[in-house]
Amino acid sequence: MARTKVGIINVTGYAGLELARLLHPHPEVELAWVTGRSAAGQKLGEALPHLADIELTIQAEPGPAELAFSALPHKSSAEAILPLLEEGIRVVDLSADFRLKDPSAYETWYDFAHPAPALLEKAVYGLPELHRPQIGSARLVANPGCYPAGAILALAPAVREGIIAPDIIVDSKSGVSGAGRTLSLATHFSEVNENTLAYALEGHRHLPEMVQELAGLRTGPPPQITFLPHLVPMTRGILSSCYAPLVAGKLAGGEKGQQELKQLYRDFFKGEPFVRVVEQPPQTKQTWGNNLCLIYPTIDLRTDRLVVIGCLDNLVKGAAGQAIQNMNLMLGLPETTGLEAIAVYP
Amino acid sequence: MARTKVGIINVTGYAGLELARLLHPHPEVELAWVTGRSAAGQKLGEALPHLADIELTIQAEPGPAELAFSALPHKSSAEAILPLLEEGIRVVDLSADFRLKDPSAYETWYDFAHPAPALLEKAVYGLPELHRPQIGSARLVANPGCYPAGAILALAPAVREGIIAPDIIVDSKSGVSGAGRTLSLATHFSEVNENTLAYALEGHRHLPEMVQELAGLRTGPPPQITFLPHLVPMTRGILSSCYAPLVAGKLAGGEKGQQELKQLYRDFFKGEPFVRVVEQPPQTKQTWGNNLCLIYPTIDLRTDRLVVIGCLDNLVKGAAGQAIQNMNLMLGLPETTGLEAIAVYP
Amino acid sequence: MARTKVGIINVTGYAGLELARLLHPHPEVELAWVTGRSAAGQKLGEALPHLADIELTIQAEPGPAELAFSALPHKSSAEAILPLLEEGIRVVDLSADFRLKDPSAYETWYDFAHPAPALLEKAVYGLPELHRPQIGSARLVANPGCYPAGAILALAPAVREGIIAPDIIVDSKSGVSGAGRTLSLATHFSEVNENTLAYALEGHRHLPEMVQELAGLRTGPPPQITFLPHLVPMTRGILSSCYAPLVAGKLAGGEKGQQELKQLYRDFFKGEPFVRVVEQPPQTKQTWGNNLCLIYPTIDLRTDRLVVIGCLDNLVKGAAGQAIQNMNLMLGLPETTGLEAIAVYP
Amino acid sequence: MARTKVGIINVTGYAGLELARLLHPHPEVELAWVTGRSAAGQKLGEALPHLADIELTIQAEPGPAELAFSALPHKSSAEAILPLLEEGIRVVDLSADFRLKDPSAYETWYDFAHPAPALLEKAVYGLPELHRPQIGSARLVANPGCYPAGAILALAPAVREGIIAPDIIVDSKSGVSGAGRTLSLATHFSEVNENTLAYALEGHRHLPEMVQELAGLRTGPPPQITFLPHLVPMTRGILSSCYAPLVAGKLAGGEKGQQELKQLYRDFFKGEPFVRVVEQPPQTKQTWGNNLCLIYPTIDLRTDRLVVIGCLDNLVKGAAGQAIQNMNLMLGLPETTGLEAIAVYP
Repeated sequence: MARTKVGIINVTGYAGLELARLLHPHPEVELAWVTGRSAAGQKLGEALPHLADIELTIQAEPGPAELAFSALPHKSSAEAILPLLEEGIRVVDLSADFRLKDPSAYETWYDFAHPAPALLEKAVYGLPELHRPQIGSARLVANPGCYPAGAILALAPAVREGIIAPDIIVDSKSGVSGAGRTLSLATHFSEVNENTLAYALEGHRHLPEMVQELAGLRTGPPPQITFLPHLVPMTRGILSSCYAPLVAGKLAGGEKGQQELKQLYRDFFKGEPFVRVVEQPPQTKQTWGNNLCLIYPTIDLRTDRLVVIGCLDNLVKGAAGQAIQNMNLMLGLPETTGLEAIAVYP
Repeated sequence: MARTKVGIINVTGYAGLELARLLHPHPEVELAWVTGRSAAGQKLGEALPHLADIELTIQAEPGPAELAFSALPHKSSAEAILPLLEEGIRVVDLSADFRLKDPSAYETWYDFAHPAPALLEKAVYGLPELHRPQIGSARLVANPGCYPAGAILALAPAVREGIIAPDIIVDSKSGVSGAGRTLSLATHFSEVNENTLAYALEGHRHLPEMVQELAGLRTGPPPQITFLPHLVPMTRGILSSCYAPLVAGKLAGGEKGQQELKQLYRDFFKGEPFVRVVEQPPQTKQTWGNNLCLIYPTIDLRTDRLVVIGCLDNLVKGAAGQAIQNMNLMLGLPETTGLEAIAVYP
Repeated sequence: MARTKVGIINVTGYAGLELARLLHPHPEVELAWVTGRSAAGQKLGEALPHLADIELTIQAEPGPAELAFSALPHKSSAEAILPLLEEGIRVVDLSADFRLKDPSAYETWYDFAHPAPALLEKAVYGLPELHRPQIGSARLVANPGCYPAGAILALAPAVREGIIAPDIIVDSKSGVSGAGRTLSLATHFSEVNENTLAYALEGHRHLPEMVQELAGLRTGPPPQITFLPHLVPMTRGILSSCYAPLVAGKLAGGEKGQQELKQLYRDFFKGEPFVRVVEQPPQTKQTWGNNLCLIYPTIDLRTDRLVVIGCLDNLVKGAAGQAIQNMNLMLGLPETTGLEAIAVYP
Repeated sequence: MARTKVGIINVTGYAGLELARLLHPHPEVELAWVTGRSAAGQKLGEALPHLADIELTIQAEPGPAELAFSALPHKSSAEAILPLLEEGIRVVDLSADFRLKDPSAYETWYDFAHPAPALLEKAVYGLPELHRPQIGSARLVANPGCYPAGAILALAPAVREGIIAPDIIVDSKSGVSGAGRTLSLATHFSEVNENTLAYALEGHRHLPEMVQELAGLRTGPPPQITFLPHLVPMTRGILSSCYAPLVAGKLAGGEKGQQELKQLYRDFFKGEPFVRVVEQPPQTKQTWGNNLCLIYPTIDLRTDRLVVIGCLDNLVKGAAGQAIQNMNLMLGLPETTGLEAIAVYP
């Protein structure tokens, strides 16, 4: 039986090339075409030698497919996607262009007027652990940002169960590939190597996603979140340390409360193929190249504060792997198809 | 005129060898001897080739000196220091053994009964920005831990001025040299390279130092602090991101409050040679090899939360450089002597 | 149909855990057991969290299997393998214990008298590109060392075709995982990070393998090889730069000779699934996690010298992947089974 | 007494900012001005925060000085230097523009016609270990390239004493800062991190320097050199492994020859403040931030080949430190002034 044809728009960025790596061996789909702007006309293996196994030439424009991934930057992505949707091609958009429900948020956070505000309501936020049924039937899935993917999962059980006050800090440490393949002094090897820094202290664009999705888990006012991203000198991986005060009376004190907390998290993620509530604090490297999100919840008993560590590979569960998980759901395939690889460690 | 003789106990650890690097060119003191346990009898340059300029043989036991640095681990350090003090040698102890005022804290946090509890009261916590006058006349200075050094400085102005509620989170990211030179799987290159992780979630030994010193800045109950250290794949540097809710009414709203905050920090550290309140978020690498602590305070206006970033080189302002700054004060020398080097960047 | 049972002796070293990563999803074999010394009794996922998907408990001793991999250090490996062979279990030995044909070489290079010198003749050196037919029927395959794997492949075409004088330099740069998981100051993060060094200048144990295998490609005296390994601060990957004087008159001059050289290499490796003669100088990262060896031959026209760059992932084509390639041949499976993954880049 | 005024042209590149770091505390000179192209008008500490101690504003044009350093790229450097020389300002040029004596070499290797070929003869190649007397009186010193600095020193004793055949291989491994501060995909963190590669296989611009300087040490035809540079994932440091066949009969065989070789090297560098013939293979990190070149000569007794390892910090002895050493000689100052710092290790 013919495999389902899919394509990648903008294969030359890190999300795009990671999609290609993961889609090529996928047993149920065929990577039919890839596009790139400056590299159009080159063989994929010329532009990206590690992909030489994939015999495709980079095209300037999308071709026919049942489903397309857009790995373009925001704004460009919406512009490229709209005609595809009109052609009936289903889309997983890895950009931010359809993640936020409030059109005005695009003016506030991304400095542009959204070209298709009516679609925002129809697009589904592509975090299967929260929106699995809607993803399956969606025409347009908005793949989560790399930071929100982990932070929302780390906090969702606590927020939904109401065990924390809506007063949250997310302190995230990201590898440098999260900043993309576009050149900048901030990603120049000698500047960022052996260096750690906080950035976007005035507010990062991934904050409204976190607020939107966590607010959707519980009635009441949206949570107040301070989100601070940091760059650390590694290529892949995000580790988010999340903090919030416990609401008194929800969990038992001491070690018993710790066990209740862990059980609450295990229950929330029961059956989830790609979220693992772990017994020891997780390490980003334990997810290198695979689609897992590892979560470790605990209570700081001295201050009655919830502390949750979440980690993932920003290019996989934080981008391309998540997108393929969404594709699997959209195509009615087993959710884990093509995503079973064990992390490459060390 | 003869230079003052000083010695280093346990030169072969990272704090010890960094002391040697900084003391060798110091114009007012003479590094008269260094000790080491397993390396005793070797020339310093054999055991540590980068120190080949220093013509000393590693001794098993301390020699005569006016002042000695102990770079031994806790417990061993107190044992080695007591006889020196009795001989009249002044001591800067880089271990934790005299940092805490409460003797019972050593049983709680370090698993040993303190051998000289009476000395705890007399020892001075060696953070000149808080205790300069007492350091000058001290016989025994307890050099701060690498994490507290930066975190206390980052929070001290806010705590003393009462602009934050005593409900603090310190999220620190440390280079691997902070874990010392003793071998462990956690510091094995292939395990920690390209990896980020949180550790000591049940409570890190540097927490009681932070509480003690910040509590001393203001009457009222001691602050509640959640301190979470992380390991990031670099050799040197600690960046601490500190969070606390602002007390309403202390600072103006909006941008005006930001300016008041920065002014409050600049005033607090006015004239301090090694603390710099910076205009842009600092980077650990900007302190590589030197004694600066860079501090960036700001307000998350969406949540009315204070966010302060502090960074330093854990082996310099977080250990050996700080110890020499203390020594300069103890010997009546200009505080910056021997510590003027610009960071080695990139 | 039941899959063939295989086992791993000493799963807790880097070669062992990489074998587990690659064998778990292998469609034709079942990883039936794994052994470890200090970790015996632990679940695999407790000792090595990234392997939590594999539901095995680490055993003290091997179990039943058709084929076993030994990832023990040399000497221990031979001791563990001999009884297995007697039981009729076929073995791929990742140690050096059966690589060299000359028993006395073990005394010279490894400081022990070989316990089964008669087996050396029967063991097959497991480089399929040179010994494919013999591997298929072997009871005992000696998997190549990580350095020789790439260096022999890089030089084999030139040696066999007689285009170079037998006067060779191999300058190799290895990631730190090649030094294994055993702790040492030389692999302590802070010592090896941001550092490059040459080691084993008096002669490295992988030299006699290179000499043996290259000598076997051509009559005449064995090649004189200077092999110098270097440690560079990365986890995975070996890049070997190989140099040898061209024999006059074998290749045309100038650009024509370059083309003849490349053609000679392409011909030699025609049909090889895991060796790729590339058009641009290869990078170790292009093989991260996969079984490829990338080779780039060229001529330094100023000095008439052959220069060949070869690179691979030391834990895959340099160890575990190579071993599975050998296993596939031994079991009559398609050679690439389970080894098709694209490199994880960046 | 007034200190000698010096200036830096193009302070914003890595060589330029390293000059500023080292000149600021220099006791005998005053850093009077710095220039930069795009950053002109900014305070030095705004453009380069780690240099905030230096209270200078970046200028568009040079000011008055007795001596100027040019850290411009080749071609631009010559253009900027010529007017300074006419004004009587002495110059240390860190670019390649005056290193080669043969004007036609600039067309061959650098693609431009040299604007002042007559000056090439007068300029002195700034390697004090070879040209100390001429540097002292030079008006224009051409600072060596980062690769040649170490490779020439590593080979000079062997070449001058005629113990090797003129058939040399230099295999160098460089940190990424050697590629400068200009953005490129090849220096983008995620591309070069965890990666090792060879480049410039068709010939690197630093080759003619090596040939010129080594040829000058001995009569006879110039040496045939294959020079192959590699990029390794660290910021600073170059390690060069040099190979050449020994001439029969010059050194004794076996261990005695090893001793003769080491003595020959020690004699050659006797009294040199910045070259150290070491007893153990050196590591780049042992020179981090300082002006040393560490050299380890040995004989591969199996092949009668000389192997010499040389290493240095490419931004110090390979650029800025070397330039200041030259300046000290030109100004009649003690050669080590301002360059005594011990390496920052680890």
